[in-house]
Amino acid sequence: MDLTDYRHKVSVRVRTFEVDSQGIVHNINYLKYLEIGRVEYRRNMGYKILPNGIFNDGLKVVVVRNEIDYLSYSYLDDLLDIYTKISWIKNSSFCFEQIVQRNSDMTAICTASGILVNINSQNNSEKLPLNFINQIKDFEKNLRLI
Amino acid sequence: MDLTDYRHKVSVRVRTFEVDSQGIVHNINYLKYLEIGRVEYRRNMGYKILPNGIFNDGLKVVVVRNEIDYLSYSYLDDLLDIYTKISWIKNSSFCFEQIVQRNSDMTAICTASGILVNINSQNNSEKLPLNFINQIKDFEKNLRLI
Amino acid sequence: MDLTDYRHKVSVRVRTFEVDSQGIVHNINYLKYLEIGRVEYRRNMGYKILPNGIFNDGLKVVVVRNEIDYLSYSYLDDLLDIYTKISWIKNSSFCFEQIVQRNSDMTAICTASGILVNINSQNNSEKLPLNFINQIKDFEKNLRLI
Amino acid sequence: MDLTDYRHKVSVRVRTFEVDSQGIVHNINYLKYLEIGRVEYRRNMGYKILPNGIFNDGLKVVVVRNEIDYLSYSYLDDLLDIYTKISWIKNSSFCFEQIVQRNSDMTAICTASGILVNINSQNNSEKLPLNFINQIKDFEKNLRLI
Repeated sequence: MDLTDYRHKVSVRVRTFEVDSQGIVHNINYLKYLEIGRVEYRRNMGYKILPNGIFNDGLKVVVVRNEIDYLSYSYLDDLLDIYTKISWIKNSSFCFEQIVQRNSDMTAICTASGILVNINSQNNSEKLPLNFINQIKDFEKNLRLI
Repeated sequence: MDLTDYRHKVSVRVRTFEVDSQGIVHNINYLKYLEIGRVEYRRNMGYKILPNGIFNDGLKVVVVRNEIDYLSYSYLDDLLDIYTKISWIKNSSFCFEQIVQRNSDMTAICTASGILVNINSQNNSEKLPLNFINQIKDFEKNLRLI
Repeated sequence: MDLTDYRHKVSVRVRTFEVDSQGIVHNINYLKYLEIGRVEYRRNMGYKILPNGIFNDGLKVVVVRNEIDYLSYSYLDDLLDIYTKISWIKNSSFCFEQIVQRNSDMTAICTASGILVNINSQNNSEKLPLNFINQIKDFEKNLRLI
Repeated sequence: MDLTDYRHKVSVRVRTFEVDSQGIVHNINYLKYLEIGRVEYRRNMGYKILPNGIFNDGLKVVVVRNEIDYLSYSYLDDLLDIYTKISWIKNSSFCFEQIVQRNSDMTAICTASGILVNINSQNNSEKLPLNFINQIKDFEKNLRLI
């Protein structure tokens, strides 16, 4: 798995309530790990999610698309590394690309992408603020502005 | 299991994401089933929970105590019957007592009780409304007012 | 939303523990509803998932890809209709296509597709059994064999 | 909250999918945090939970009782400290006592206790191994042997 462009990583431990009767992490739980990666990516930029689900720079986003390819199994108590980058930004939306890798043997467990839209207080999509775009431009090497 | 006093039942199906690697329903998931029983108990009385988590008669409750005894295992795809009653009412709080039973063989899976408190818009406890008390008194045979 | 080809539907109720602090169903929970739709689709064909996660005709499948487009919000206590069909079958894999629609106003909440692979007891992919293929061919109007 | 006897702590972050439409952590999610505390308590003793849910010293336990008192609310992104101790050991069972405290202001969020039973491969309760008992006796100041 090519991790070259990934500059953010957070690790999660697989828990008893996330593994199913086949002994593997149930497919829905990866979306939890991916969401943790996305929030921590923003924390790494200096922002914190507030109790109402809006970030403390005013950014309010909703997920409009999720896509996951499951490549291998992960198991109870595995330590998983969640790699997160933003690959593109468009008017009001942007795309997270992510890789989940088992820490112990570096097996790629899944790859994923998620598209998020910036919304205003009426829940309509709204152009992303310039400071957000500039900050991501500075951070991500191969960001596409589309 | 003595079901004599239970006048409300709702059934749930055990799902793949609720069973752990020991092949049994993970202990945390019973709290989900119990909560479904509690909301459906109120629906049976004619009330509906609104998007903000408050019932449409204005009742806003929070759980202050949960207690569960796990008596037997349940498995993937089991149909579980959740029996729910209110056993006592006190100023601002009341107690749900519940039994979870497997439908196919009537094995008791767990018994539980949960204490809920009525709160006002400032999140302080508040006396339960009289119409709530009277309706439960009419419905439950052995309600204790304490 | 074009529901013409969908011959299977199951309904789920949105629960308190599935709605986030923005007051909407959290994006990960739709994968639960979709999985319920997939298991019930098979039950409708006459098969039941066993405690070990394998169906009672021996079919053992794993999810290799999930894709969801979130079109609208759904809220606490919404009754959601999950429409499920199989759109294509290939050697050892097949694809569920699904639509989640709010029952009360028929708003499309999300569309999704999931690719599943048939595996043997060594967890390697294996050609789908002929009786599975034939049964889906009989049931689905526009199935593609690829 | 008296933390004197607690010699094990692990911290968890409250995530978006754990907070409900009242903006507070949903009551069921504390059982997840408590379970994390229990597994980490054992890791701290030198043991690891295996993919099949059994610890690598052969200990196989099931939860037979959970009890939680919810004292205060916690919110999205709160860092919670989970304090865990074993308070008593009996033939085949033992009791975890736990406190969940918000890290930022040391508010006690909930107290809990859970009783676990040691089982053998036939899922019958079995006397706890002597090395387990001795190790806990060495670690916990006020352990009761009953």
